[in-house]
This record gives sequence, structure tokens and C-alpha cells, in this order.
Amino acid sequence: MTFADHQLDPRLDLKLERIVDVPRELVWKAWTTPEHLMKWFTPAPWTTVECDIDLRPGGVFRTVICSPEGERHPLAGCYLDIVDNERIVWTDALGPGFRPSNQPNDCIESFFTAIIGLAPHGDGTKYTVVVLHGDEESRRRHEERGFTDGWGTALDQLVACIKDGRISG
Amino acid sequence: MTFADHQLDPRLDLKLERIVDVPRELVWKAWTTPEHLMKWFTPAPWTTVECDIDLRPGGVFRTVICSPEGERHPLAGCYLDIVDNERIVWTDALGPGFRPSNQPNDCIESFFTAIIGLAPHGDGTKYTVVVLHGDEESRRRHEERGFTDGWGTALDQLVACIKDGRISG
Repeated sequence: MTFADHQLDPRLDLKLERIVDVPRELVWKAWTTPEHLMKWFTPAPWTTVECDIDLRPGGVFRTVICSPEGERHPLAGCYLDIVDNERIVWTDALGPGFRPSNQPNDCIESFFTAIIGLAPHGDGTKYTVVVLHGDEESRRRHEERGFTDGWGTALDQLVACIKDGRISG
Repeated sequence: MTFADHQLDPRLDLKLERIVDVPRELVWKAWTTPEHLMKWFTPAPWTTVECDIDLRPGGVFRTVICSPEGERHPLAGCYLDIVDNERIVWTDALGPGFRPSNQPNDCIESFFTAIIGLAPHGDGTKYTVVVLHGDEESRRRHEERGFTDGWGTALDQLVACIKDGRISG
């Protein structure tokens, strides 16, 4: 499956694309190491308090995010496609071992599949997130609940972690 | 992900395992070629009237089965893991391109992931199907609606097609 040329369906997909001036190998590291992912994954003042990563198709990707008041939201899914330094595809419609989930995530009340694409861009990185939904209503809900701000702010935090050396090569 | 050593969860999984005296390369062909799959996939007197196969992770696996009275049931999903002559994993929780499905299949009213395992066994094949469900209720419904009979009869039909030369090397 080549997702580089994924044809966006604006009724069902959401997309964020930005050029960031940090090397893609470090962006990759930020996405694939629990210790590093927990530093940036959730827009402050929320924090990521748990993270499990088994980076292979069918392997677990699980996080728990937490509000300053202690409200916890788990997100559990599995990876579908991994290309080192280039692409991560995961979904919450399936859990570890590809088992169907019986519980849509409580942020958007439906399942999604996320495609993270990284490409070299000068000394920096072209960073693309495409999120696929099963119907228009789910896409709309994700958009209204802050897809662009949420994923954009998380990316700002990721870049800041690389620039101040908290994530390094 | 190695499914050879999938640890069965009897609350959530269903399993069919049989030794069949036909070569696994032909069983593989029966599962991966639309023209051949349509000959055996659905217990008679139902028939498989449409089949699309794009044999790669994220590629479509779609069938339409039809009763003698013309009642049609579509089943659409995508492949998750493919190892030639050895393993096919697919789910209906995701459609082509890994997009979450918004419509559980109408046979068991919930999603499932199927793992087809083929191993050499003398001149024949050890044939294993494991079906993963998201909760006990879905497993129970699939069992009550004839998992063992349905998949077993389909396998009998597959074997008969190979023996009488309708599926050949």
C-alpha cells in the first residue's frame, strides 16, 4: 500500500501538512519511543502518562492522556504499516493482534486510522498527518473537537523537544 | 506478528483446524484468486456471486454471497498480513486503504478478524482458521450462527474443487 499518494477524500479524511525545521530521523524517534512520545504527544496542560509501543503490524500502540484534574482518556490500537523514517499507520478500530475493538475512543466516539508521513525537505521535514474516518459524521466531530489545533499543537511541542535537546540523536 | 503461535482466547476466539489431503499451494490458490474462491467460499445452495481481491496489507477483500432466492449479503474488508502459502489475515473492521468501516457485517452484526493458516502435513495440509472478536457476545453469536458448520462445509467444497480439477496447479 503506498500512502504517499493517498487520494484525500475531503468528506471522510482530515489532513495536516507542515514543514518543520528538524531532521526527520528525530521526528521518527519522537513518534516511536514511548519515553520520547510522552514528552509531546498531548497538548499542554494535558499530559501523556502511559505509552506502549510495539512497532510492527499488529503490535500495540496505547496511550493514556490525563488532564490537570486527573481525568484520564485511554487510546488503544495497533499498528498497520511501518516504514522506518517514512510512514506510520495505526488504527484504534483494531487492538493488539488485529483484534476488533469493541469500544470507540471517547474523544471522537468513533474509530479512526492515522497515517503519519515524513519526507526530507531541505534540512527539515515535510510532516503529514492524514486521518481516515468511516463516515462524514465522524470526520466532522473530529474536526469540531479540534483536530487541527490538537495535532498542530502536539507537533509544535514535538519540534520544541528536539530543538531544546530533550529528544536527540 | 507471528500468528503461528497465536494464543487462543476461548472467550473471544473461534477456531477450526483440520488436516486435508490436498497440497497447500492449491489451497492458497483457492483463497487468493477470485475466479477460484467463488467456486467454494459459500456453503451451497448459497453462492458467491462477486469477489474482489487485492492481496496486500490494506488491499480490498470483498465478496457478495447470494441465496437461491436472490438474497444478497456483501462482506467487505481488507487484508492485514499476507505470507505466501502460509497465512492470510483480513478484517471487516477496516475497508480498503485501512479506512474504518461504519457497518458491521450483517451475518454476525459485529466485526471480526480472520487468520487462515496453512502448513504442510505429509502430502496434505494442516488448515487452521482462527476468528477474533471484540467481545464475548460477538463470539457467541458467530458460534450460534454456524461458524463451525459454515467454515467446515466451505472447506469441504474447497477440497472437492481441488480433487475434481476445478482448481488446479
